[in-house]
Amino acid sequence: MSDEQQGGAGYEPPRVWQWQQASGGKFSNINRPVAGATFDQSLPKGKHDLQLYSLATPNGVKVTIMLEELLESGVIEAEYDAYPIDISEGQQFGSDFVAINPNSKIPALLDCGESPPLRVFESGAILLYLAEKFGAFLPTSQPERAACFSWLMWQMGSAPFLGGGFGHFYAYAPEKLQYPIDRYTMEVKRQLDVLDRHLADNRFLCGESYTIADMATYPWYGELVLGNLYSAGEFLSVADYTHVLRWAKELGGRPAVQRGARVNRLWGDEATRVVERHGADDF
Amino acid sequence: MSDEQQGGAGYEPPRVWQWQQASGGKFSNINRPVAGATFDQSLPKGKHDLQLYSLATPNGVKVTIMLEELLESGVIEAEYDAYPIDISEGQQFGSDFVAINPNSKIPALLDCGESPPLRVFESGAILLYLAEKFGAFLPTSQPERAACFSWLMWQMGSAPFLGGGFGHFYAYAPEKLQYPIDRYTMEVKRQLDVLDRHLADNRFLCGESYTIADMATYPWYGELVLGNLYSAGEFLSVADYTHVLRWAKELGGRPAVQRGARVNRLWGDEATRVVERHGADDF
Repeated sequence: MSDEQQGGAGYEPPRVWQWQQASGGKFSNINRPVAGATFDQSLPKGKHDLQLYSLATPNGVKVTIMLEELLESGVIEAEYDAYPIDISEGQQFGSDFVAINPNSKIPALLDCGESPPLRVFESGAILLYLAEKFGAFLPTSQPERAACFSWLMWQMGSAPFLGGGFGHFYAYAPEKLQYPIDRYTMEVKRQLDVLDRHLADNRFLCGESYTIADMATYPWYGELVLGNLYSAGEFLSVADYTHVLRWAKELGGRPAVQRGARVNRLWGDEATRVVERHGADDF
Repeated sequence: MSDEQQGGAGYEPPRVWQWQQASGGKFSNINRPVAGATFDQSLPKGKHDLQLYSLATPNGVKVTIMLEELLESGVIEAEYDAYPIDISEGQQFGSDFVAINPNSKIPALLDCGESPPLRVFESGAILLYLAEKFGAFLPTSQPERAACFSWLMWQMGSAPFLGGGFGHFYAYAPEKLQYPIDRYTMEVKRQLDVLDRHLADNRFLCGESYTIADMATYPWYGELVLGNLYSAGEFLSVADYTHVLRWAKELGGRPAVQRGARVNRLWGDEATRVVERHGADDF
């Protein structure tokens, strides 16, 4: 077994790190140590004010759930056009996308109802922006509002350990390395236990109110306990987190959540994919 | 070299993960796969409305910078008591702390001006809460407000790759593993380049307005390029990020930023530590 196959154990870091385009497993072709656009790109635009450039990964689905919930609740101004950004093809490095999100990650939103069109990036920021714009799914009184901020930020700061940590080393890295897998498994189980204890006493993350904190958390932790993320249900003993499961099943049964999960999906059952979304009849 | 010393290369994950209390390097004693309080605890309380339980790590310093900036700008209602939570001693697992933050991470804020006292956890949530409460450092008009949400969330979702990823594998893990170090070094350099390109054209993250997005980002990325985090300045070639450096130096020169960095500090030069903070004369 070569050094490289051993995860580089016994490695002595150089004084100055240099990029070597070695394999980093699945998605390694989209990881770079530099930012910025790599090619000219002209993104399509639809007829609605809200233009979403996204993909049906957990971070993308947060926003399509929110938009579908807004529409479900009668906010017709939340109609939107959603175009897929195929990150495996590097479309997030195109000039138009980078102009909306300099961080080259989905989702990215353009609100053409503002002049000039307003850009919002990061799923949590888009949720906050839409909640304020439409006055929905963000409590206006305390203590629910502070709880919503707290759990929304908890999700933003925690999921990188689930996706970029556990998911990468358990499912995507070119080799299984025990130390990183143990490290991130322990943290993800701790996070699930945090949620489980909280949801034992609360219907939703902010009590009786269904909020953007739930919409942010469901696509990661809800899908995880339902066994739909990384095929890791048995490994993580997700059945132990009974309160998270109860909450995930309730959310997963909502029509808007089901629609949101289908938007900009480029994989899975072709019959259920809504690759581009322009109106209710696309479902 | 044993399997364990090789980072567990060639590892075959079991069907169901089991906790083994092996060494995970520095801070391994505070990592657990379960949440909740482990001992009864009675936290001290001071005379002000705002009670902060924190530590002068980057996430803690975000909040003390905000509070000191509020005071610097004349908002006397932002007076606060700050008590240190020694995470190396496991104080974040005490019953009183867990009641404020079920996630057992610093910082945690109690606003005793609300009845009952209001809890806020996660540094980003505390920044938003204080910005709303005092109407400061969060733009009220577009596009600056959406930019502030975007960059604040960018920081929340990015820093786990810097702290929990790069910092852990480069500085704290029991063994240097090349694959994780390369993975997180590449991502941190990409993040620095995202900031650098943006700050080339902007004085602050939201343009001319100094906001909570800057306060959230400085303790991580500002301190990193100034060479104060993980002794990684040369390894990451931080001198290349000239615009981040310019911004970091401007922020680092602000009296409120300098005071904020001293609050709840339990290490370094004893003369500059402000272990507990109750008023301006503690500095």
